[in-house]
Amino acid sequence: MDPSRPLIMGHEASGVVWEVGNAVTSLKKGDRVAIEPGFPCRRCKNCKAGRYNLCPQMTFAADPPYSHGTLRKYYKLPEDFCYKLPDSVDLDEGVLVEPLSVAVHASRLADIKVGQDVVIFGAGTVGALCATVAKAMGARKIISVDVNASRLEFVAGFAATGSYLPIRKDSPEETARNIKNVYALDEGPDVVLEATGAEICIDVGIQLLRRGGTFIQTGLGKSKVQFPIVALSEKEITMKGCFRYGAGDYDLAMHLLESAKVSVRDLITCVFPFEEATSAWERTKSGEGIKTLIRGPL
Amino acid sequence: MDPSRPLIMGHEASGVVWEVGNAVTSLKKGDRVAIEPGFPCRRCKNCKAGRYNLCPQMTFAADPPYSHGTLRKYYKLPEDFCYKLPDSVDLDEGVLVEPLSVAVHASRLADIKVGQDVVIFGAGTVGALCATVAKAMGARKIISVDVNASRLEFVAGFAATGSYLPIRKDSPEETARNIKNVYALDEGPDVVLEATGAEICIDVGIQLLRRGGTFIQTGLGKSKVQFPIVALSEKEITMKGCFRYGAGDYDLAMHLLESAKVSVRDLITCVFPFEEATSAWERTKSGEGIKTLIRGPL
Amino acid sequence: MDPSRPLIMGHEASGVVWEVGNAVTSLKKGDRVAIEPGFPCRRCKNCKAGRYNLCPQMTFAADPPYSHGTLRKYYKLPEDFCYKLPDSVDLDEGVLVEPLSVAVHASRLADIKVGQDVVIFGAGTVGALCATVAKAMGARKIISVDVNASRLEFVAGFAATGSYLPIRKDSPEETARNIKNVYALDEGPDVVLEATGAEICIDVGIQLLRRGGTFIQTGLGKSKVQFPIVALSEKEITMKGCFRYGAGDYDLAMHLLESAKVSVRDLITCVFPFEEATSAWERTKSGEGIKTLIRGPL
Amino acid sequence: MDPSRPLIMGHEASGVVWEVGNAVTSLKKGDRVAIEPGFPCRRCKNCKAGRYNLCPQMTFAADPPYSHGTLRKYYKLPEDFCYKLPDSVDLDEGVLVEPLSVAVHASRLADIKVGQDVVIFGAGTVGALCATVAKAMGARKIISVDVNASRLEFVAGFAATGSYLPIRKDSPEETARNIKNVYALDEGPDVVLEATGAEICIDVGIQLLRRGGTFIQTGLGKSKVQFPIVALSEKEITMKGCFRYGAGDYDLAMHLLESAKVSVRDLITCVFPFEEATSAWERTKSGEGIKTLIRGPL
Repeated sequence: MDPSRPLIMGHEASGVVWEVGNAVTSLKKGDRVAIEPGFPCRRCKNCKAGRYNLCPQMTFAADPPYSHGTLRKYYKLPEDFCYKLPDSVDLDEGVLVEPLSVAVHASRLADIKVGQDVVIFGAGTVGALCATVAKAMGARKIISVDVNASRLEFVAGFAATGSYLPIRKDSPEETARNIKNVYALDEGPDVVLEATGAEICIDVGIQLLRRGGTFIQTGLGKSKVQFPIVALSEKEITMKGCFRYGAGDYDLAMHLLESAKVSVRDLITCVFPFEEATSAWERTKSGEGIKTLIRGPL
Repeated sequence: MDPSRPLIMGHEASGVVWEVGNAVTSLKKGDRVAIEPGFPCRRCKNCKAGRYNLCPQMTFAADPPYSHGTLRKYYKLPEDFCYKLPDSVDLDEGVLVEPLSVAVHASRLADIKVGQDVVIFGAGTVGALCATVAKAMGARKIISVDVNASRLEFVAGFAATGSYLPIRKDSPEETARNIKNVYALDEGPDVVLEATGAEICIDVGIQLLRRGGTFIQTGLGKSKVQFPIVALSEKEITMKGCFRYGAGDYDLAMHLLESAKVSVRDLITCVFPFEEATSAWERTKSGEGIKTLIRGPL
Repeated sequence: MDPSRPLIMGHEASGVVWEVGNAVTSLKKGDRVAIEPGFPCRRCKNCKAGRYNLCPQMTFAADPPYSHGTLRKYYKLPEDFCYKLPDSVDLDEGVLVEPLSVAVHASRLADIKVGQDVVIFGAGTVGALCATVAKAMGARKIISVDVNASRLEFVAGFAATGSYLPIRKDSPEETARNIKNVYALDEGPDVVLEATGAEICIDVGIQLLRRGGTFIQTGLGKSKVQFPIVALSEKEITMKGCFRYGAGDYDLAMHLLESAKVSVRDLITCVFPFEEATSAWERTKSGEGIKTLIRGPL
Repeated sequence: MDPSRPLIMGHEASGVVWEVGNAVTSLKKGDRVAIEPGFPCRRCKNCKAGRYNLCPQMTFAADPPYSHGTLRKYYKLPEDFCYKLPDSVDLDEGVLVEPLSVAVHASRLADIKVGQDVVIFGAGTVGALCATVAKAMGARKIISVDVNASRLEFVAGFAATGSYLPIRKDSPEETARNIKNVYALDEGPDVVLEATGAEICIDVGIQLLRRGGTFIQTGLGKSKVQFPIVALSEKEITMKGCFRYGAGDYDLAMHLLESAKVSVRDLITCVFPFEEATSAWERTKSGEGIKTLIRGPL
């Protein structure tokens, strides 16, 4: 693609199969599919070792210079990056498989176990989906933290067992202490999923964790932050960076939807026709609702 | 112990068994032993789960308010925290089992594999010992980084396969790039062991790592640092805090010494008699040599 | 204990605290507790490494020559091997925490993940509890296999999503094929939990598993069996022996009961007063019902 | 390939690149390479999850109906399954990269750690290479067991620290006890690598292991064997099937050769010209020497 030309946006998408190549066996024209919008080289060490999301030659939608995005009539991708939607999941919900896979990837990296306590920073799409995936994995307490009260309220009704709105004047240490006290997380939670990228959330999250706990960084914010390194050392916390999704994540997301262990329906707060795509972007920018969709003609 | 009273220092120590309790079966008066200077409650969840270094009730030498240190004539501890020295290891070397166990713990947390490339920040006692443990685990390239040229030179002769003296005006990004170029670490090392606690080293270490690499924080410095969180996320780095040593670390340290896979003899650059202990502390403070010992009368 | 004297039986038990030692802080007279009926030395390598169930000096109830069993008025054990029962769990259910912990241990060794398919051999107490724990961990298909039709029926109503009564004349290969066909386990299940110890079940279980699957052997039968070793190799199956329960298993069992993710009430098919203990043993021997309890006077 | 036609044999091979496709960047005509003789579909769940050796659509040399073997003038395979030989490794040694990768795969599955004790059953090519890889990984005691005294002698000189020739009349239990006694393996070895497939070796291996030890089955023999299942359960042994080699195994094999941590030169006991290939097969069948090579004209 030519970098001087405009970029087609979009990497969360579902669609209907229009045409398949000769070698394709698992899909046919007319199949409704969720789209995994990046495919790897399949040949480098990361690909072969089972971590294709770390492939340096990934072709990812709307990620210049490699590829335009999905917001268009036709999109071509390999057979094994299309996932047939079950009858119970419609095309709108199919769009949400992408952020659901982000949450699945984070939760699998955290290796959440039944009975564990989880605190999630961020109550937007990914944060809310992390809460519901944590629940499906059997988490005990699932506490959502956000500065946006209406999002918090949504997540509390959706999947979290508790929510916390930080007091702005509190230090990270005080916020951590408060969350522990309010939710009786005596030694701290087993897992923190950080889905904001905000410096203060990262700080509070590390302070909060129990000794030997796990911290997953899935949100992206500014490139460098003030970080409580000594707390990480003294508690022997394991912290893992989290990037997109990889082997098995879309499969698990599909299972969670099909089995109704997870529902994404309530996250879709608004749908625009393709012709009004610009309004969709503007609404998203305004922070209203959770997820705004653009629906093309079929 | 009374916090208003002076504290006996010391947590790196070896000695000769003076007396044993009735139930002791593996030790007898006269045995030469290395001392693991902290013992846990054995009953909490961390202890039972195999991570006794995270026990909240650890009794650690010279760590008020629980316990005085080892720098005295008699020191009492449980049988299973004494490790009999083989004939080939003398009492002076036995003192070094403690920092060697720190290096063993860090290297085991990193899970260094044969053929992996390792970069170690810090060329003091722990950094040097990390290099030699990495070598025993089969690491390929072992690059030591420090701002002290004489320490670097020592480690290069001791166990590292290469060394790097950072240029002070370079940014973390530049330093990371230089280390990669000088040592042909194309995609970056598999493992970084950070043994300084210095902000800049932590930053460079994260920048340096290959995608999917592992970062171990064993050094302690200031409590918060500027940290390249986006680089950690995008490369899906695993970062682990590292605190003292735990199950099996002293055992492995003893094996490394007994088998001569590791030698600590050259780290002992100076020995003072007990009466001149103050001079030993002063010399250590001056930064001269690697390890200064205090030898008591036997 | 004197091996020429009769042995007090019993290792599944709950009770009320009668007296506590001076150092006990978490329990008091009158507390209702589930009993973990074996405690380890806390000092050997296995204990320190977090696998105390492999302690060679375990003192286990009704396991001569170390210890009599729990079927008596007073039983003495360390504080941290007593687990306070929540109000919602009665003393009868408290007895079942022991076999539930066996199932928890097996399921944790298998590391069952949300969305995985699990086949369980044996529909007795442990097999049934494995099914309910697998469900709590998020398993997708949970297929119970047993030759006893009434037990199968019970487990299907209790926690399994499907059940299979093997046809006696079928070879292990045919039985494996049939189970796959009936339950559309295309490549085979991810996990097999073997809770019978029967040669044929072990054989079928290995044949059944998908490539890279996990097999847990928790049942004990005859000491040597015909085993399909080439199938294990070619599919790179991981097979783990499973012995009692260890760190965290009772804790998780308690959580599962308290949260009502697991209920053991329906497993208790008969309760005898202490004076009729003999009848209880006879009923158990007859194979009637699932679990027969002996209730002492309080 | 036509199954009614003869099969070209061979899957251990090295060669010189004759021609490359347009997209190939890492190889050119004239490069000397070791050949990984099977390539996977790159698209199935096993491939994407990092276990391509479990790909059901593997195209493996001399494995009908998919592919002829390597024993011919030209052999075509994907770029990333060719491994450039360093100058220090000749084409004869390059042939041995295949069995070396089998040993690497087994040793990595075992996750041999520095200081661990390893017993290896079988002193043929794979058994000998397992010994040398175990050594490179830092194993302490490496005991080779075989009924062929001359092979045992070879391995003892090559890489093992001890060897044991079983007494034929001994039971598996006695043989296990003897090996422990002779080599002071008090609680048993940490790892057993079984490279024979013989029933008695598998039995002895399980009996021998310490509690919590790891058993790797790499040898293939008869499809079912008498197996000590209760010993596996009570000691919570982890047993893993081992099939060929996968992601990273050839890379590590190449590193071991290039770094001279492993040398395969001494295993090559005989080389025949291509015209006398039949004699090579006959010599191999006779059991003489370790490895017989067939060298083509270049």
